[in-house]
Amino acid sequence: MELGAARIGIVGLGLMGASLAKKLTASGTVRRVTGWDRDGAVRHLARSQGVAEVPEGLEELGSESDVLIFAVPWRFLADADRAVRRGLAKGGQTMWAVMDLCSAKRAPGELLRRSWGGRYVGFHPMAGKERGGIIHATAELFSGAPCAIVSYPDTAPEVSSFAARLAAALGMDPVEASPEDHDAAVAVVSHLPQLLASALALVAGEEARRNPLGARLAGGGFRDTTRVASCPAEGGADLVSANGDHLRRGIGRLIQILEEFLSLPEEALEERLRAAASAREEILAIAAGRSAA
Amino acid sequence: MELGAARIGIVGLGLMGASLAKKLTASGTVRRVTGWDRDGAVRHLARSQGVAEVPEGLEELGSESDVLIFAVPWRFLADADRAVRRGLAKGGQTMWAVMDLCSAKRAPGELLRRSWGGRYVGFHPMAGKERGGIIHATAELFSGAPCAIVSYPDTAPEVSSFAARLAAALGMDPVEASPEDHDAAVAVVSHLPQLLASALALVAGEEARRNPLGARLAGGGFRDTTRVASCPAEGGADLVSANGDHLRRGIGRLIQILEEFLSLPEEALEERLRAAASAREEILAIAAGRSAA
Repeated sequence: MELGAARIGIVGLGLMGASLAKKLTASGTVRRVTGWDRDGAVRHLARSQGVAEVPEGLEELGSESDVLIFAVPWRFLADADRAVRRGLAKGGQTMWAVMDLCSAKRAPGELLRRSWGGRYVGFHPMAGKERGGIIHATAELFSGAPCAIVSYPDTAPEVSSFAARLAAALGMDPVEASPEDHDAAVAVVSHLPQLLASALALVAGEEARRNPLGARLAGGGFRDTTRVASCPAEGGADLVSANGDHLRRGIGRLIQILEEFLSLPEEALEERLRAAASAREEILAIAAGRSAA
Repeated sequence: MELGAARIGIVGLGLMGASLAKKLTASGTVRRVTGWDRDGAVRHLARSQGVAEVPEGLEELGSESDVLIFAVPWRFLADADRAVRRGLAKGGQTMWAVMDLCSAKRAPGELLRRSWGGRYVGFHPMAGKERGGIIHATAELFSGAPCAIVSYPDTAPEVSSFAARLAAALGMDPVEASPEDHDAAVAVVSHLPQLLASALALVAGEEARRNPLGARLAGGGFRDTTRVASCPAEGGADLVSANGDHLRRGIGRLIQILEEFLSLPEEALEERLRAAASAREEILAIAAGRSAA
């Protein structure tokens, strides 16, 4: 299907779903953009601000769409999926493509593939913001970010291709990934940083209560290292339930390395810290070269 | 002593010492700025670029200064201090004030107080950069940063006052602190972030070797959370030897919190993550209000 022919239905109009709707509505890339949210105030805002067309209910949204994008937290995914299928079943319809924006893919993929088989493809824009919700949504949220396109062996090739073209139309660099590789990778470069930032902010908060000096001396290092701790808590809580095994492994390894830091003689520690700086730079160089690759 | 009357001698012309020298030389705040580094190439650069006047040796530097600032890594501090005192002893001179820029203060303070008693005051600019060395030094490095002024009960009040005025002249907000409070505070808002960033970069580097996708999907979250891992490794290795007890306590607490994250039910985790975001915002609000306070 051409992008210009597609009617896109977005389930969930939080930061991610509403930003997606805004960009697609503003750019006129697709034939139609409808959206739905379980929160009536959000639906009202989406309608009044022209973020998307908002149908009567989730069941209508499904029957008026060719491509469905679930932009809800993982824990609400099963309910949202059931509601959409109920609507489609009445009219005997099916869906040309189904995606989700969840930040882990194995668990959501298993769930949605039971409903949609080879019409499902995982879609993960590696973008976000410190403030969540439709009021912080912006059409530019995705610009320049990588977007994982997570296909299964039986995913219809035209569905994967549509997802990659959609990512590009949103200003992102599509990156093909298997579900397992995707989840292992984001555990380390995305989910672990978020939990670490939150844990560090909590340790600092406890120290600041004992010793107010900590807050007065906090500088750019603290601000940057904890930045993603300000990302919406709902998304963070989802990480552990959807990607717990990889996160557990990453945290275990991180703890080993911290303990090693504390026990190494000074010069060996210096060498490890230098290796850390190199590892960071290599990763950022690869990330920066993504679109060139 | 007025700033304008002081001859400042800076021992160590790395990023911090050379930035200090550049700012003082450029602003004409003090009477004279001399500097010394154990690396001949650095001395040559300092001289040819007019960063500071460079005497023949460390012994001369001391005898031509009223105020001495040690800007060397902690592990070189005892040697540098001995060399300066040797020079002074020949002429029967002493020093009006002595400071160090070490990022922890208890251990360096103990060492320098044995040499200088109440003429010593700790000076800790909470500023830095991803690249070290004189070639990255800049007069603006300190602008807007907090600077801890670490006095002891017997520190001469005129010495503490001089240090605070010097910090202000460098564009910093002076923050008075006891050695113990200082080290506990920076362990959490500065040293712990640096070790965490390095540990995360190492975990990500290991994962990237197994699964190249990680690097391709790295975005702003990874970049910011690991930024301080690119700070000079020498400084990082010093943290553990100079502030190990506080760091060990901070890392221990952080590990507890990470383990808690992995075991909490989703809603309780969401609440903890929300508390982390609040703690971060409170700390940053206090840090931002520093100069107003």
